[in-house]
Amino acid sequence: MAKVLAINAGSSTLKWKLFSLPEETVIASGMVDRLGLPNSKFVIKKAGGEKYSETKDSIDAQEAAAMVLTRLKSDGILEHLSEITGVGHRIVAGGEKFKDSVVITPTTLKQIKDLSEYAPLHNPTQAYYIEVFQQLLPKTVQVAVFDTSLYATMPEVNYLYSIPYEYYEKFGARKYGAHGTSHRYVAHRTADILGKKLEDLKLITLHLGSGASITAFDHGEAIDTSMGFTPLAGITMSTRSGDIDASLIPFLMRHLGISDVQDFIDILNHKSGLLGISGVSPDMRDLDAAEATNRRAKLALDVFANRVVKYVGSYVAEMGGLDALVFTAGVGENSVEMRAQIASQLGYFGVTVDDDKNDVHGQERMISKDGAPVDVLVVPTNEELMIVRDVARLTKKAPIK
Amino acid sequence: MAKVLAINAGSSTLKWKLFSLPEETVIASGMVDRLGLPNSKFVIKKAGGEKYSETKDSIDAQEAAAMVLTRLKSDGILEHLSEITGVGHRIVAGGEKFKDSVVITPTTLKQIKDLSEYAPLHNPTQAYYIEVFQQLLPKTVQVAVFDTSLYATMPEVNYLYSIPYEYYEKFGARKYGAHGTSHRYVAHRTADILGKKLEDLKLITLHLGSGASITAFDHGEAIDTSMGFTPLAGITMSTRSGDIDASLIPFLMRHLGISDVQDFIDILNHKSGLLGISGVSPDMRDLDAAEATNRRAKLALDVFANRVVKYVGSYVAEMGGLDALVFTAGVGENSVEMRAQIASQLGYFGVTVDDDKNDVHGQERMISKDGAPVDVLVVPTNEELMIVRDVARLTKKAPIK
Repeated sequence: MAKVLAINAGSSTLKWKLFSLPEETVIASGMVDRLGLPNSKFVIKKAGGEKYSETKDSIDAQEAAAMVLTRLKSDGILEHLSEITGVGHRIVAGGEKFKDSVVITPTTLKQIKDLSEYAPLHNPTQAYYIEVFQQLLPKTVQVAVFDTSLYATMPEVNYLYSIPYEYYEKFGARKYGAHGTSHRYVAHRTADILGKKLEDLKLITLHLGSGASITAFDHGEAIDTSMGFTPLAGITMSTRSGDIDASLIPFLMRHLGISDVQDFIDILNHKSGLLGISGVSPDMRDLDAAEATNRRAKLALDVFANRVVKYVGSYVAEMGGLDALVFTAGVGENSVEMRAQIASQLGYFGVTVDDDKNDVHGQERMISKDGAPVDVLVVPTNEELMIVRDVARLTKKAPIK
Repeated sequence: MAKVLAINAGSSTLKWKLFSLPEETVIASGMVDRLGLPNSKFVIKKAGGEKYSETKDSIDAQEAAAMVLTRLKSDGILEHLSEITGVGHRIVAGGEKFKDSVVITPTTLKQIKDLSEYAPLHNPTQAYYIEVFQQLLPKTVQVAVFDTSLYATMPEVNYLYSIPYEYYEKFGARKYGAHGTSHRYVAHRTADILGKKLEDLKLITLHLGSGASITAFDHGEAIDTSMGFTPLAGITMSTRSGDIDASLIPFLMRHLGISDVQDFIDILNHKSGLLGISGVSPDMRDLDAAEATNRRAKLALDVFANRVVKYVGSYVAEMGGLDALVFTAGVGENSVEMRAQIASQLGYFGVTVDDDKNDVHGQERMISKDGAPVDVLVVPTNEELMIVRDVARLTKKAPIK
């Protein structure tokens, strides 16, 4: 039995799951939150549901990783750390370099660092965690799994912007997409559920969380996605604007007295989206609660649905059809209302939801009406499982014991 | 018989057409080009096809307008200037103020000037021409026809960006659209050709010129359009980028050593689009000629078609169907190849072209296959006719003699 650790590191959080393979069961999971801040929070959850949490000031990345491993031993989840046969790391930006997950070597680690410009908040942190785990588990193979590599197959017409071509050649200015690990998991899982080959499906996956993106799969490959050069582009998100007219930037900078364009991009990332429109909250649950009495809360929900519907339409056009539409991530898995609202606007393409079946939260389920031309599903995402599967796949030659 | 002059003024050009009403025939037309530059060019064309042109250094706006009127008399097209019973001016930005064309008064003229921030290259010039014609034809009623007023009916979910709502309230940051006079003409003309009411059609009009935009009509109203706060947004154009990820702006400014964001927006307006991708030309005819031997010329054409197809798909989703698709403007009226390329990618929606019927340039024609579910048409645009019709409509109370 092999145990593989999936690491999902953000700038102030460390999320992890320990899987047992080949059964693919989670034997423990946890999170360290508020890293480097007062009241950092360490939480661990065992397979049985038992929880342990601890609050401590300013836990740093190194300490957080050490705490995870120490706790796994002290709680008896592991007898020896050497039982961990592989560690997989989610990496946000893989640029054009990484078309698949890779085993970490000094070269690949340097390449990940070199791509920091494409994800300045993520790649440096994620590379740092690789080094931390190399120190803590020096004999354990580590694997990098990129959010972007799913989109290595995207056709040129979809990844190029209509800007001077040398900006692509010289600086890598193109669409890279994001959430690839989630879309990849959900797409393959959907094919399994439907008992079909992914190659035979025209599929659109809706990853609707606080970040949100839409990916189209045709002939087994991701052919287009709503996020762009960065995760700012595409549909309305919790606090991100999605697509805007670039001309708004100098116009609003002038009116707001902002001189550094990056400061305005920060507004588009952190103060826009559902929060910006509603003025109420970036959280769709708050907007659902407020919409009956707050016009702008309802407006934010309506704009969100509208943008999803338009992207779906554009991908149906690109693929020339639609076999299945899949909802995943926080909103996609849990918002009965938003799924119904989106589906009701896509009836022309054969999209339906059955109200009874749609009354589901965080569980795999077919929610379209019986006999409808398009299968509509809820498929909870599982990026960590995808990560450990990649660890297993890439370490086959040096098999996980 | 009334004679009405339609004025379409740009920053360095003055285009005009003189119509006879109610027959709606053009009795003369012309253009003054390279205004304020060496070798300004004055051209006038009579109904019979007879042409006169003259080259002179640095013709200014006032002189250009005077030359037009003088020539109309000296060529015997008019006996007295008083025969001109109305002048209609194309105005680019009408903001949220102008939901229809208006008769020029001191108040409306001031409002047009006040909207200059939304079209800094156009509104000040167009307001100046109104004043010039007020001096030259002091007794003649003048009317302003706005590119944006067609979109006054656009639903809030489509005109709002997902940015802080107060930017809309305080600064008018929203989608205004453009090319409205063209889309309006073409939509109504299409309904006439089909013998149906516009109210009964789900219609998408493709204005594909050097500027390019797509508008969706449902229940007789424009419900969405691809241009945004400014004409920079939407699909790929001759030199404009259309939609990009806003994050590209600080990234590329850094790499290019550009410190003023407006300088980068200028690149997006003037050096991007077909020109930027191909490196060959902003003119689709040049790309058509080059595509067999130049990979990037073909790529630019493919990206252009791709963006059109995606916008059409998004509007089919929004409307829940499509009855007719209409091509207009330079490329739309003349590029047999581009029409065929776009239509071939929209087959899923029932869009077709019949190769024989599609072999048409600048003429009204139904080009879809017989019995196809979606009517596909070429309808040459006629913004000037729309302008003079508005002059006639708005001056009914003080009828044109």
